[in-house]
Amino acid sequence: MLEVEAALTRACAQVGLIPHEAAAAIVEACRPGVVDPERLWAHATESATPVVGLVEALRSAVPPGYGRYVHLGTTSQDIVDTAMMLVATRAIDHIAGDIEACIDRLLDLVEEHGATPQLARTLLQPAMPSTFGSAVAAWLSALRSAAEGLRWWRPALQFGGAVGTRAELGVDGDRVAESLAELLGLENVVPWHTDRARVVELGSALGICTGTLAKIAGDVILLSQAEVGEVTEGRGGRSSAMPGKRNPARAVLVVACAHRVPALVATLFAAMPQELQRAAGRWQAEWPTVTDLLRLAAGAAHHARAMLADLRVDADTMASRVARTTEPGEQSP
Amino acid sequence: MLEVEAALTRACAQVGLIPHEAAAAIVEACRPGVVDPERLWAHATESATPVVGLVEALRSAVPPGYGRYVHLGTTSQDIVDTAMMLVATRAIDHIAGDIEACIDRLLDLVEEHGATPQLARTLLQPAMPSTFGSAVAAWLSALRSAAEGLRWWRPALQFGGAVGTRAELGVDGDRVAESLAELLGLENVVPWHTDRARVVELGSALGICTGTLAKIAGDVILLSQAEVGEVTEGRGGRSSAMPGKRNPARAVLVVACAHRVPALVATLFAAMPQELQRAAGRWQAEWPTVTDLLRLAAGAAHHARAMLADLRVDADTMASRVARTTEPGEQSP
Amino acid sequence: MLEVEAALTRACAQVGLIPHEAAAAIVEACRPGVVDPERLWAHATESATPVVGLVEALRSAVPPGYGRYVHLGTTSQDIVDTAMMLVATRAIDHIAGDIEACIDRLLDLVEEHGATPQLARTLLQPAMPSTFGSAVAAWLSALRSAAEGLRWWRPALQFGGAVGTRAELGVDGDRVAESLAELLGLENVVPWHTDRARVVELGSALGICTGTLAKIAGDVILLSQAEVGEVTEGRGGRSSAMPGKRNPARAVLVVACAHRVPALVATLFAAMPQELQRAAGRWQAEWPTVTDLLRLAAGAAHHARAMLADLRVDADTMASRVARTTEPGEQSP
Amino acid sequence: MLEVEAALTRACAQVGLIPHEAAAAIVEACRPGVVDPERLWAHATESATPVVGLVEALRSAVPPGYGRYVHLGTTSQDIVDTAMMLVATRAIDHIAGDIEACIDRLLDLVEEHGATPQLARTLLQPAMPSTFGSAVAAWLSALRSAAEGLRWWRPALQFGGAVGTRAELGVDGDRVAESLAELLGLENVVPWHTDRARVVELGSALGICTGTLAKIAGDVILLSQAEVGEVTEGRGGRSSAMPGKRNPARAVLVVACAHRVPALVATLFAAMPQELQRAAGRWQAEWPTVTDLLRLAAGAAHHARAMLADLRVDADTMASRVARTTEPGEQSP
Repeated sequence: MLEVEAALTRACAQVGLIPHEAAAAIVEACRPGVVDPERLWAHATESATPVVGLVEALRSAVPPGYGRYVHLGTTSQDIVDTAMMLVATRAIDHIAGDIEACIDRLLDLVEEHGATPQLARTLLQPAMPSTFGSAVAAWLSALRSAAEGLRWWRPALQFGGAVGTRAELGVDGDRVAESLAELLGLENVVPWHTDRARVVELGSALGICTGTLAKIAGDVILLSQAEVGEVTEGRGGRSSAMPGKRNPARAVLVVACAHRVPALVATLFAAMPQELQRAAGRWQAEWPTVTDLLRLAAGAAHHARAMLADLRVDADTMASRVARTTEPGEQSP
Repeated sequence: MLEVEAALTRACAQVGLIPHEAAAAIVEACRPGVVDPERLWAHATESATPVVGLVEALRSAVPPGYGRYVHLGTTSQDIVDTAMMLVATRAIDHIAGDIEACIDRLLDLVEEHGATPQLARTLLQPAMPSTFGSAVAAWLSALRSAAEGLRWWRPALQFGGAVGTRAELGVDGDRVAESLAELLGLENVVPWHTDRARVVELGSALGICTGTLAKIAGDVILLSQAEVGEVTEGRGGRSSAMPGKRNPARAVLVVACAHRVPALVATLFAAMPQELQRAAGRWQAEWPTVTDLLRLAAGAAHHARAMLADLRVDADTMASRVARTTEPGEQSP
Repeated sequence: MLEVEAALTRACAQVGLIPHEAAAAIVEACRPGVVDPERLWAHATESATPVVGLVEALRSAVPPGYGRYVHLGTTSQDIVDTAMMLVATRAIDHIAGDIEACIDRLLDLVEEHGATPQLARTLLQPAMPSTFGSAVAAWLSALRSAAEGLRWWRPALQFGGAVGTRAELGVDGDRVAESLAELLGLENVVPWHTDRARVVELGSALGICTGTLAKIAGDVILLSQAEVGEVTEGRGGRSSAMPGKRNPARAVLVVACAHRVPALVATLFAAMPQELQRAAGRWQAEWPTVTDLLRLAAGAAHHARAMLADLRVDADTMASRVARTTEPGEQSP
Repeated sequence: MLEVEAALTRACAQVGLIPHEAAAAIVEACRPGVVDPERLWAHATESATPVVGLVEALRSAVPPGYGRYVHLGTTSQDIVDTAMMLVATRAIDHIAGDIEACIDRLLDLVEEHGATPQLARTLLQPAMPSTFGSAVAAWLSALRSAAEGLRWWRPALQFGGAVGTRAELGVDGDRVAESLAELLGLENVVPWHTDRARVVELGSALGICTGTLAKIAGDVILLSQAEVGEVTEGRGGRSSAMPGKRNPARAVLVVACAHRVPALVATLFAAMPQELQRAAGRWQAEWPTVTDLLRLAAGAAHHARAMLADLRVDADTMASRVARTTEPGEQSP
């Protein structure tokens, strides 16, 4: 939020709406450590927004006379939505990095195991002989699409002023928006105060990533069963009750993270019908939901990366099971 | 499903895998009315798929010797997933048509009311004077994006054979897939038996449409309140208890349809982690969920169209409220 | 709905508000076959309620002069909510019957396999030797509690009149309610037009039943894996691609039904904040959601019963796996 | 978790399984500040449970020879589930206290406004004259039931050992359980490692509380609209853009908290089908979900209390609207 207020100040100064000295003072006040976060939270509760307190704190932090240039022509929702976009952008970089590492590892596995025979299983029953390479190729194809979907999502500036019309800055409104978008590296679009598709699309892209990672992790758990024994997590997790036990701990964590995501995505969809020019509750419910989604996707990607890095493939077990299963009479594919 | 089996037969015949006479007989058996749906349902319950019974019925319906050409190189999931794509494509045409009609009506309203003063409201409290045209323009922009998102979604052929590798048809597998995709007007992609992103993206696009329509309908309900009186549904719904009452019935139906959508989208996201080469339950849960989503989106679009077609705008009430609210002392914007 | 209108008429006649001849005529008109359902649907769309059309149809079906006694002192929501309670009551009887049959079968299995050694598995890894009887006892205990929860749920009369105060019938309102509740076998409670806890509790009780059944079915699927082979569905489902394959089809159907339930329960929770004296959309979204929940719980219970009736237990395989797993060095429990 | 380990130690000592000196040392090590939480988190990620690290830390903190008495006969899930029950119990006390305060305030409002005329509104349209007391009585009745439901929920001890059979402690298992339940003030029930109904019921009870509070808050927002003006939040929240504006901030926060709840409840329902003797992902997803639900219910109750404490009722506006609406010709109830 401080970055957004600082960039807004710079954009207004560029357009000539704020004297350069005042702008410099405000930008200085936006540096971390100047505003006391505790004070923000008190006001956040009173007014159902952290921005009222933020603006007051910034005004107190600049020399007299400059206060009126703080938060010019903008509204709480502009600051919060734009800040949410910045947070999302950075979290996505992180998540995409871990997914790329997963993709690289899957590429290696496909190459290495393109000819490793493995029994394919449908409805968890033996189906036909296939290869482990084919199974990994299916993981890979799904994960690549999921990663593309995440990169395809575009964060955008929110800048509409009090009622979404940029009316406060008059003819300068659009120029400030353009400048602000450029400063923050965000797409400049029409105000979207009550058009929440962009937020839902972020949730959806994250949900596809975690769903895909959970598919892979679920397969790892199934193939790790002692009775199957075709893959193992190298290190494995331990048990507090049974010292000799090794659990597919990373895969379990991927599944646990991913399990929580679909409902959070639904919370965003359910928040779409926002009232008139600004919602009375549904918008406010988006902030922590988006944060949780970013955290869970980051967790799933992080643990999936560790799981795959550490994955041991038992090609002999795979091959011998195919041999046994296709003996005459046991299975007619 | 019958259309898919017929097209599969044609595609195999084109590639030379089925004699033309046999193909003609199978295609004929795929015409509606030949296969008895009751028989399908019995088998659907026994085997957790309607396709086992479908294939048996088609085999009984063709001359002896042709039965082995039915359902060549394919699996239940190929038929069901591809059929789901065809159903979705047709339903989307219908839904998109109604949304286009909404968009046309909104375009007219923006033009007509670009200068109609209206009070903008944030958190359901008076904010600043704006215009009804601005409010409708926000609806319009959101609905256009939602419609684009729906059109952007691409249905695809599912054709992977028993375990998703097209192995049964050997070198002909890819040629049959190409031919089949063309016959059905679907995108030809790698098999996606356990990569369910496409299904989730359909749900997501539909959810954005219904969420956007519900935002508009919710605003209509709020602006229709007797105490606000700025718009009305022309005809209005009636009450069983109070003969003189008029309800915003169409808007209520849009909201009711849309309210059910987010959870169904979550059901699709939660179904993503599908086991190994074919899921044991989560895939089977997708079919009715997608059907419900298409129905609800169609319902929301249909009722939104009726609501907007019939919407009466009381520009005088809007204007006089702006005048009253901006009197000195009452509101300091 | 017709049963509710008939019972309302009888209750009003008992209290002396409707002449007995008029009451008899109305009750007669409420018999199935008199009112044309098609007509109801047309009106349902126009007014966002099927009751406006229902009342008109009943009034047309009785001799002139009796029409004013139809639907006395009541409102659409009274009829729909009370009808929903009747539907739920009957569906629950059905569901509870199938669950009882599951419980009986589990009791037999516990008795039969109390001493059958089986490997217990945590995080899908071998944990410690236990018995199949213990595993089934855990299923049984959970299913019994779930069944008790379903029986504990109490359907109630909805009877509040236009705005939930029973004001239309004056001092007779409470007497009619008492009589009506008795006639329909429902609890007589204060009007709950916008207190939807009862509906949510129904969804919750059904969700606990399906979640518990899916836990059992999921375990059956895992224990049925060829590599585990400790249980099998006797008949098994077939595949359209692989004639020799046998799938745990009933278990898959239980999982598929249950997978759709949590989101529908969420739809009911999300519908709770209903506006003022009657909701504009959220209430209307409850009807089909409750119907779906009843259907899915009935499906899950039906298939679970078939799955368990047909379950074959391979005690030798269970025992030999325990013997192998607990050999020195292989597992230190 | 430390409290649970301490109580387990005491219970084992009571039964004679741990020497009193060893028990005293372990209980001492369970005091806050002895175990370093950072160390726990590292292990939590490796093994998908915080308990492995907790047990190691406790063993390091006691004199040599006592380590083997730490965590006796128990498993990670026993500690985490029981700790979750303790956390829930304390959070519920807090939540119930705020709801009681809401109930007291509603009782006062019913008494004060039993005769205050107010227009009842259905589908957000004027329906019939009623009283504000009736509206508040409906809130009150719903909130009382919700509070009873929350108090009715019973936290229980989880104590099953490695595979849910209490086998490790032999004949002493049940005595330790009894003692442990008494020490912690929890119900002593059969192990419920994979019977998650209790957790779902907690979520459901919390969801009914937040849904009910959101219904009240939603009504406050609607009645606070400037055009309605029948109630106001005394202090009101402020806007960062419009200094004169007053928002129903507390009501908005209640709605925002409650909006996030239904999906989280669905996450718990979806987590019910837990595999065999311990789940590989779904159980692990419950912990943060329950924490979030407790937080959100606490937030909703806290803000609802503040909203109601501060609520101003404009009886004159209510009365004059009833008078206007019931003038002949304007509304025929």
